[in-house]
Amino acid sequence: MALEGKLLIGQRAVSGNANPINAINPATGETLEPAYVGGGKEEVAQACELAWSAFDTYRETSPEERAVFLETIASEIEAIGDDLIERAMAESGLPRPRMEGERGRTCGQLRLFASVVRAGEWLDVRVDPALPDREPMPRLDLRQRHVALGPVAVFGPSNFPLAFSVAGGDTASSLAAGCPVVVKAHSAHPGTSELVGRALQKAVKACGLPEGVFSLLFGSGREVGAALVADPRIKAVGFTGSRSGGTALMTIAQNRAEPIPVYAEMSSINPVFLLPEALKARGDKIAEGFVGSLTMGAGQFCTNPGLVIAHEGTSLDAFLDAAGEAVKESPAQTMLTPGTHEAYQEGVAYYAGHDGVREVARGQAGSGTNQCQAGLFVTTAADFLGDETLQRQEVFGACSLVVACASNDELQRVAERLEGQLTATLQMDDADLDMARSLLPTLERKAGRILANGWPTGVEVCHSMVHGGPYPATSDSRTTSVGSAAIFRFLRPVCYQALPEGLLPEALKDGNPLGVSRLVDGKREA
Amino acid sequence: MALEGKLLIGQRAVSGNANPINAINPATGETLEPAYVGGGKEEVAQACELAWSAFDTYRETSPEERAVFLETIASEIEAIGDDLIERAMAESGLPRPRMEGERGRTCGQLRLFASVVRAGEWLDVRVDPALPDREPMPRLDLRQRHVALGPVAVFGPSNFPLAFSVAGGDTASSLAAGCPVVVKAHSAHPGTSELVGRALQKAVKACGLPEGVFSLLFGSGREVGAALVADPRIKAVGFTGSRSGGTALMTIAQNRAEPIPVYAEMSSINPVFLLPEALKARGDKIAEGFVGSLTMGAGQFCTNPGLVIAHEGTSLDAFLDAAGEAVKESPAQTMLTPGTHEAYQEGVAYYAGHDGVREVARGQAGSGTNQCQAGLFVTTAADFLGDETLQRQEVFGACSLVVACASNDELQRVAERLEGQLTATLQMDDADLDMARSLLPTLERKAGRILANGWPTGVEVCHSMVHGGPYPATSDSRTTSVGSAAIFRFLRPVCYQALPEGLLPEALKDGNPLGVSRLVDGKREA
Repeated sequence: MALEGKLLIGQRAVSGNANPINAINPATGETLEPAYVGGGKEEVAQACELAWSAFDTYRETSPEERAVFLETIASEIEAIGDDLIERAMAESGLPRPRMEGERGRTCGQLRLFASVVRAGEWLDVRVDPALPDREPMPRLDLRQRHVALGPVAVFGPSNFPLAFSVAGGDTASSLAAGCPVVVKAHSAHPGTSELVGRALQKAVKACGLPEGVFSLLFGSGREVGAALVADPRIKAVGFTGSRSGGTALMTIAQNRAEPIPVYAEMSSINPVFLLPEALKARGDKIAEGFVGSLTMGAGQFCTNPGLVIAHEGTSLDAFLDAAGEAVKESPAQTMLTPGTHEAYQEGVAYYAGHDGVREVARGQAGSGTNQCQAGLFVTTAADFLGDETLQRQEVFGACSLVVACASNDELQRVAERLEGQLTATLQMDDADLDMARSLLPTLERKAGRILANGWPTGVEVCHSMVHGGPYPATSDSRTTSVGSAAIFRFLRPVCYQALPEGLLPEALKDGNPLGVSRLVDGKREA
Repeated sequence: MALEGKLLIGQRAVSGNANPINAINPATGETLEPAYVGGGKEEVAQACELAWSAFDTYRETSPEERAVFLETIASEIEAIGDDLIERAMAESGLPRPRMEGERGRTCGQLRLFASVVRAGEWLDVRVDPALPDREPMPRLDLRQRHVALGPVAVFGPSNFPLAFSVAGGDTASSLAAGCPVVVKAHSAHPGTSELVGRALQKAVKACGLPEGVFSLLFGSGREVGAALVADPRIKAVGFTGSRSGGTALMTIAQNRAEPIPVYAEMSSINPVFLLPEALKARGDKIAEGFVGSLTMGAGQFCTNPGLVIAHEGTSLDAFLDAAGEAVKESPAQTMLTPGTHEAYQEGVAYYAGHDGVREVARGQAGSGTNQCQAGLFVTTAADFLGDETLQRQEVFGACSLVVACASNDELQRVAERLEGQLTATLQMDDADLDMARSLLPTLERKAGRILANGWPTGVEVCHSMVHGGPYPATSDSRTTSVGSAAIFRFLRPVCYQALPEGLLPEALKDGNPLGVSRLVDGKREA
């Protein structure tokens, strides 16, 4: 399929008027065609108007219609074939198996949400039947369901050109909830975005839905992104990216005449606690697993293990030796964009130049453009606790800081000082159980996901997943951006009191025609 | 019980240092003793520190322990006896049956939350069992439960000295979720607040809970209230009151180093649509019901019907005649505070002085202090649509504006122009069903609760209730402040990946020892 470099507004492909953006192949430095001429306020308004006019129709499509739509999007993405993989590889520098895996994840996610829409848990149907004889006052018939919030603005990051981008988790969960979506494409992968956007356009048409259900905008974050979040027809925002980007959108959203929720997944250093008995018994194996997780995908994951916390001593020294060896052997990898590479270099230089931090090892240096050298550093808990910037340093890439603690008490204090995180990991043996128990309350307050004897990279798309966590990991700790519960971000409850049967939504009618789980008088009916 | 005029910080009663506040009996103008000397930043910090130190223990109390605590609070409130009713009547000017009813509602609400805690729906337990043989990658064991957000700051309004105050819905749902509570008492009913606060203190002690689970502060909103919301140990805010008060707290909460959710229930004019066939067939009866709802409790409800929308014509004229007669006969009533009375007078004067608004009727004038005269006014849809201030005018009290529409189209435009509302009401007959259907999508986007052939005053405390709605009715349309779903405001999900059985929380252990409803591999098990 020939790329056109145009904005997709409903079923149209439209030329912008602002500055053109070209993708750059980070592995070669080569500029990729075509140029994507950015849109402006005009195009934002058009996309939002279409989304708004589609909203009432789309949100009342049946679960089956919406599920088929999500499945059709997945099929249309698969139908693009190898063009998608090759363009995504060229725009991201990521290898083929990773891009093929990510395509599988993206389509699997869309199909999971199709099953979620059909199952109907998201409706949260509640029925409190009338009690006409209750004293002193009768109770009227009361029923509740969830409805869609409204059109959603989606902003993806550079590091998942498919799974967190145009048809990624935010889009899939918004569409599943009944919300039209306007995506602001990431400037790092415009061609991948266009290919997936056209697949979405086709699915909208094939399913006979109003065209405003999906639009794709290109342009500057400061102009197009800000105008999109400020538009009164947008009712929620999904964002994955940097802390500064996320907080900028939060400010715009809060200053609207009608403030709206922003679901921003921003920054996390994902502490890993090496508990003493596990470290003693199998420090080598832990070091191997750690460096595998650290260097996977050039460390460009929001769940990358950027902080390791352990007791000082011979076991930790042995771990550092083993991990240092593995880091030294780790090959250079191409990073996603020149900007990402530059920020990584700065972050590593910060550790390298810090008085309280010692370099343990660096990975192999590369010869190509935008290649990163992994980095492993160590500091003491005293230094870590004494310097706020060390606690808040997220180096996006394959770089990690080990914090050596002189006592249990110091280790607890390090844990307590952490900001909100996506994940917290325990490497532990049975003999560490008491210590793990004493850490758990702190970790529960700090993180959205707690792991034992695994690694935080690799986020399963399932019903129990929480890819979220207290601020600044995300803007809203009550939610997840991965897994089926992500749909609840885009819904709100409505109560219907004594409505005639003919006016009740299908989900609430007598006899439960949709066959969904309901809470009747407070009792769960599966 | 002798009132002491002190702040309750944990189990202590403490004297403040700031300006003293005395309640005023609005019916007599009399100053009520004792004086409540306000606290300052010092007392806020003490209460927050205690709440924080209680948090990890309290949030892990078993459902049974927490349920018994809620039931004990209810019993302790009942044990205060008539002193509570008399003080609440003196501080609010509300009549005895209303205060007795409100006490019943308050204790019933606490007992409802006890049953909710035991039932365990709030845990939202999800289990995705390990799939060790899955290709290409095995799935690890993943489980999810909800945990409490942290200490909650609660601010009540003047109009429900019991049900939305110290032990009201926000406190009950926070405590049910496992969150300690710090209440900032409303200055209109400090004595009622102290009585209920002491009942809570006793319940904390009787149940052997850490004292920081509950504190009660008196003082100025600008100092004590602002310091409370800004305190880093507070993790959420429950507020019921004015739009200016709610948005001020939202701004403080958003500007913290760690922003936190504010659940502010603020302003609503609760539109009532009189559909043509119902209006023709039974305009008199509708007028009677309407004026009953309008004037109940001097109209001092956030669900008071402040806006009536109908087609112009003889049916509406007849309705206005009948409603006007009923308003004229409605006796004067004492309002809650001098400030409420003054704001009401200003609101009515605004309608009376507006060129596009005609007075239909005023109620009887009173002879005592702070007495209000009900008011009914009428305008045209053209005037209403032409003047933003008319659309946004919330007159807190027994005053309502009727909007006469020249066409269906105009009526739809009036509906579409409304801000977010707690409720929207349809007076309709079977022959109005098509028109109701065409209005429903708009009403669903505007309101948290939609009623047919009832009146919005009277909010059932049950599982389906939504006392919420789009901004500015509330700050967060995804939630309710009344009913069992209010508990979800104070919870967040945590995912546990491959944790050893010995480390898993009770709710997630194999065999489901708490016997709660679970979503296993996406399938509901009741």
